[in-house]
Amino acid sequence: MSDKRTVGVIAGRGIFPATFVEAARKKGVRIVMAAFKGETESEVAEEVDAVEWFRVGQLAKPIKFFQQEEVAECVMIGQITPGRLFDLRPDLRVIKILASLSERNAETMFRAVADELGKEGIDVLPSTTYLEEYLPAPGPVFGPELDEAGLIDAAYGMRMAKEVSRLDIGQSVVVRDGTVLAVEAFEGTNKCIRRGGDLGRGKNVKLVKVSKPGQDLRFDVPVVGPDTILACREAGVSTVVIEARQTLVLGIREVRELCEKHRVSLHAQEEVDQPG
Amino acid sequence: MSDKRTVGVIAGRGIFPATFVEAARKKGVRIVMAAFKGETESEVAEEVDAVEWFRVGQLAKPIKFFQQEEVAECVMIGQITPGRLFDLRPDLRVIKILASLSERNAETMFRAVADELGKEGIDVLPSTTYLEEYLPAPGPVFGPELDEAGLIDAAYGMRMAKEVSRLDIGQSVVVRDGTVLAVEAFEGTNKCIRRGGDLGRGKNVKLVKVSKPGQDLRFDVPVVGPDTILACREAGVSTVVIEARQTLVLGIREVRELCEKHRVSLHAQEEVDQPG
Repeated sequence: MSDKRTVGVIAGRGIFPATFVEAARKKGVRIVMAAFKGETESEVAEEVDAVEWFRVGQLAKPIKFFQQEEVAECVMIGQITPGRLFDLRPDLRVIKILASLSERNAETMFRAVADELGKEGIDVLPSTTYLEEYLPAPGPVFGPELDEAGLIDAAYGMRMAKEVSRLDIGQSVVVRDGTVLAVEAFEGTNKCIRRGGDLGRGKNVKLVKVSKPGQDLRFDVPVVGPDTILACREAGVSTVVIEARQTLVLGIREVRELCEKHRVSLHAQEEVDQPG
Repeated sequence: MSDKRTVGVIAGRGIFPATFVEAARKKGVRIVMAAFKGETESEVAEEVDAVEWFRVGQLAKPIKFFQQEEVAECVMIGQITPGRLFDLRPDLRVIKILASLSERNAETMFRAVADELGKEGIDVLPSTTYLEEYLPAPGPVFGPELDEAGLIDAAYGMRMAKEVSRLDIGQSVVVRDGTVLAVEAFEGTNKCIRRGGDLGRGKNVKLVKVSKPGQDLRFDVPVVGPDTILACREAGVSTVVIEARQTLVLGIREVRELCEKHRVSLHAQEEVDQPG
């Protein structure tokens, strides 16, 4: 053991874990990873100071591993869909959690897991820890800057997306010229992008992705990445509006290249006051 | 001319005009119809006391026709999509209306047409005029009655749909067990039904269709009909929740048969108080 700060990573799919590991490394942090078979990318597991592999559905063993490695703080990052997390042979600890929940959605389940970790002396940190540089401040981020009409529409979309997420429906809407073309509910962002792009017929169409008012930053933080820009490009969505300082841009170098190459605007918008 | 009450009908697509004509006939009303080529069903035009056919996009000529027929009150019923209404060779009067609008959506356009009729001494009546019997009171309407869990979910869906329509996004949501599966925005109700049904995998899935808070009953009144029930049946949506006294059930005999045959519940829900 060293006297560096140790942070545990409960690592799901995609580039989020690798982004965290790179950022935490720069701060000289010791990283202990609980990786999940079929979810975590194997490359990232080779980069950390200690790793063990688990099945999705196991909680007791990852906790024991973290305790052995003296992990007192961890992050839960990368997608593990709640279905995947609990469908596959849950261990007794997970069964107990499930039984205690009256509502089962991503938020209640992740919160319950976080509470369980907390009882074992392991705090769950915001999943944005060390990632401030991936949380854009207000203004143009990459690609063509919005003109005045674009900015008005971005503010409109932000207001609509905030209302929709306040209702716990979803994080994204697709808008054009003051009309909501598509609302993301259960189908996921990429299908919402495709539907909105089709309905908007490639003119001034904007994806707006936001956090929930009072978002718990330990999980479900809105993320955009290269696949978001590619999905928009394919669907004829020309602008991506994210919430300033609340949305993670992952794969940021690739996102920049894609925005510039395909002329997709990435714009960070501050939440405006709600009328009424 | 007779001394009966005369009501003009600006008639769009579908069974709404025929339903109105049948109901108005029973009240002994004289009916003068402005029918539109490619929109109005020809059968209904044969049922009325006077009819003339126009192209969608004409307004000056229907106004003149109504004035000749001493029409001082009219209804605008049946779908004419705003795009269709104005895309096809608008007359000068319609061009003038369009030029005066800063926002162009169904509501602003229909309202502008209603204002223009008003200036010519023709009042636009609620499109529910004479149709009280097609506006169900709270409670089960047709098909299997909801159980207690179903009623709780219906109230939840009503709250969500009301919030979504308050934002002018759309009139419908698809819910299941306290989760919004799909929100209707620009794609239309039937596509929203299909998406929600797919996502819900045929279990306890409910379509909820409502009016906007403060709905102008002269246009855009929510309507369900036989095609709604058939779309739900095909998509695996087992329940249709409508807003009591605010949603028109058209083709009501066929709707009853379809609900009973396919075990689709049609339930009229009163709006509940909004929390917060």
